[in-house]
Amino acid sequence: MKRNALPHVVIVGAGFAGLQVAKRLDRSGLVVTVVDRCNHHLFQPLLYQVATAGLSPADITSPIRSLLQDKKNTTVLLAEVIGVDLQQRQVHLKGEDSISYDYLVLATGARHSYFGQDQWEAQAPGLKSITDAINIRRRILLAFEAAEKESDPEKQCAWLNFVIVGAGPTGVELAGSIAELARRVLARDFRHINPQLARVVLLEGGAEILASFPQQLRDKAEASLNHLGVEIFKNSLVTHIDDCGVRIGEQPIAAKTVIWAAGVMASPVGRWLGVETDAQGRVPVRDDLTIAGDDRVFVIGDVARLADASGQPLPGVAPVAMQQGVYVARQLHARIHGKRLTTPFRYLNRGNLATIGRSAAIADLGWLRLSGFVAWVVWMAVHIFFLIGFRNRFLVFFQWAWAYFTFQRGARLITPRES
Amino acid sequence: MKRNALPHVVIVGAGFAGLQVAKRLDRSGLVVTVVDRCNHHLFQPLLYQVATAGLSPADITSPIRSLLQDKKNTTVLLAEVIGVDLQQRQVHLKGEDSISYDYLVLATGARHSYFGQDQWEAQAPGLKSITDAINIRRRILLAFEAAEKESDPEKQCAWLNFVIVGAGPTGVELAGSIAELARRVLARDFRHINPQLARVVLLEGGAEILASFPQQLRDKAEASLNHLGVEIFKNSLVTHIDDCGVRIGEQPIAAKTVIWAAGVMASPVGRWLGVETDAQGRVPVRDDLTIAGDDRVFVIGDVARLADASGQPLPGVAPVAMQQGVYVARQLHARIHGKRLTTPFRYLNRGNLATIGRSAAIADLGWLRLSGFVAWVVWMAVHIFFLIGFRNRFLVFFQWAWAYFTFQRGARLITPRES
Repeated sequence: MKRNALPHVVIVGAGFAGLQVAKRLDRSGLVVTVVDRCNHHLFQPLLYQVATAGLSPADITSPIRSLLQDKKNTTVLLAEVIGVDLQQRQVHLKGEDSISYDYLVLATGARHSYFGQDQWEAQAPGLKSITDAINIRRRILLAFEAAEKESDPEKQCAWLNFVIVGAGPTGVELAGSIAELARRVLARDFRHINPQLARVVLLEGGAEILASFPQQLRDKAEASLNHLGVEIFKNSLVTHIDDCGVRIGEQPIAAKTVIWAAGVMASPVGRWLGVETDAQGRVPVRDDLTIAGDDRVFVIGDVARLADASGQPLPGVAPVAMQQGVYVARQLHARIHGKRLTTPFRYLNRGNLATIGRSAAIADLGWLRLSGFVAWVVWMAVHIFFLIGFRNRFLVFFQWAWAYFTFQRGARLITPRES
Repeated sequence: MKRNALPHVVIVGAGFAGLQVAKRLDRSGLVVTVVDRCNHHLFQPLLYQVATAGLSPADITSPIRSLLQDKKNTTVLLAEVIGVDLQQRQVHLKGEDSISYDYLVLATGARHSYFGQDQWEAQAPGLKSITDAINIRRRILLAFEAAEKESDPEKQCAWLNFVIVGAGPTGVELAGSIAELARRVLARDFRHINPQLARVVLLEGGAEILASFPQQLRDKAEASLNHLGVEIFKNSLVTHIDDCGVRIGEQPIAAKTVIWAAGVMASPVGRWLGVETDAQGRVPVRDDLTIAGDDRVFVIGDVARLADASGQPLPGVAPVAMQQGVYVARQLHARIHGKRLTTPFRYLNRGNLATIGRSAAIADLGWLRLSGFVAWVVWMAVHIFFLIGFRNRFLVFFQWAWAYFTFQRGARLITPRES
């Protein structure tokens, strides 16, 4: 086993959780390696904007190397982790030498999950990466092109039907954004179809959309979606998906474009560590975010399962991931000084936001509940504030302002699939 | 054969030439169909900026539909042309019904050409489309990542060697831009390599770089390239390319990244029309831009071959394409009024520009020759001015200003190849 003079921290994943750890470990007497299979940090909350042609991929990504370029103790490695050896303290990489660690932070996030129906993925892609977003953008834009060329009215309808499965924040944001794309942005661009007649159907298996929000705000969100023309079907569990559309029980909905926003599954950290996970693949962690039996291994972000004071598992959202990252960095600072942070991790919920189209949102700040335009302004300010890098903040602000006042979307680019 | 009440003009290709025709045919008593296999108009002169991570793909593209949305007599069709029937006056489309025309404008541009060595394309991609640019950007960025991980010094060198084949404006712009990326933007981002040691080699088969410019400006350009650290090899015809690098005669240059900027070949319009083309696949046109024997068919832009007053064929550049588009629109206006424009097409050369990195350029305006920073400012102003759409103009200007003052490039995004 290779040993550095200074303790070596390996951070796997440079999402919200992993990046927070890395940013806070400079001048800490540690050697740090950040491993990610992508070269960029992704601002996931705005991924739906890329999928619906509002923003460009580079607007919501930043190269991990440039985010960490001033941390001289930190090396960034573009590589894919395929396993962990807890005994030898090694991380195994695909096609490359393994690396040794003294402390390991696993923050590899989650992918969408099809509840065992993986064959649905081809027809109903999910939205977790830049590639997913470019793929969904291409499908949405090509659906209108196909409808324009289709002479059979039934087939034309199927091309103009958009089904979103799952009415959590991502599903709601996608539905609102597609409805606006059809009704506003594309309205005057076609000659044989009227894009305003496109149907956007939002399917929710449970009794309520946006289950994590209070009833009052759910009602506001539903009203805003209805106003945009989104049809909401609750208690509607999808039983079948193919290239004709979806079925809810025996009820078919013809649709050529189906987007999956229903379930997530943590990346395979549980398998790497050889530990039991919960149904969403999350690894149970102790209240200092280490795993049972090995206090050199931290698991944080969407792959970690930790209950809050009420016994509910913490949600897979950016604020949880970032706060956990900050906590782990503090814990590591204490450790290398031979100490140990005794306060357990506690999540401070500062609020919950979701947007519905270009001028409505809901915001649950605990002490204050906002909806409509005011909530949308709060949503916009929060998202721009947290966007990594001034340049991206400015570009996104300008593009939104432009889109807001002109109803144009600049990123309506269909990049052909590479052969 | 379907007949509209009004004459039907079919324009194939919405590049600089085709778009100019389409934009000028509203309120003309014509029905217009624009056929393109991409949904976007591409501002090709800035494609090298996308390939070297300076701009995002959507910054230099605009949806054809939105550019023409106010032309109510115009339909945009996303389709691929596979042939033309001059007798029946029909355009054949891939997988779709043929369309009839009364007037046909063919403006389908050119692709890169490997002088019969098509097997070189896999190792030495060319730069003509957005997909090409994303592919080259990925290769360049991944080369630095691979070098960072490589322990064998010889292989590491090969990853840090970048060879550009062909020293016309595109080759020169690529070489300058890659040299700056390595020496400025990436300088502090790696730990095991020094990106400033990357070699950028510009190969020219002829005796001079930028052959279309006067000697005095060529010398300036060469000095600017040398200043950026670009090595220029003249009279260096590539005889072999494989995944180890290139050979010039028997002389090998080890390089994992090779970019082709040496030759172009017009799209297969000659084959569609059954006419002889020149060596670059261009179709000879008469001085009213129609083809011999059929004055309903116009061929313009990079696919047309027309000699200027001195007998030289007009170059394949945007100003020629745009002026030809304007001329054809005027000719069509005259035709539907039963008249005919008797003045032949004449190209008015307003100047010739090329840029070398972020603060030098050369500009040959005929009456004035500029180089260095002043020429760069002229180059920037001209390119931003002609960028389609205010939004893109503003975004590109802001991104350039940002990159200029901070040495950052925002679009350093490696999107994984889609599976």
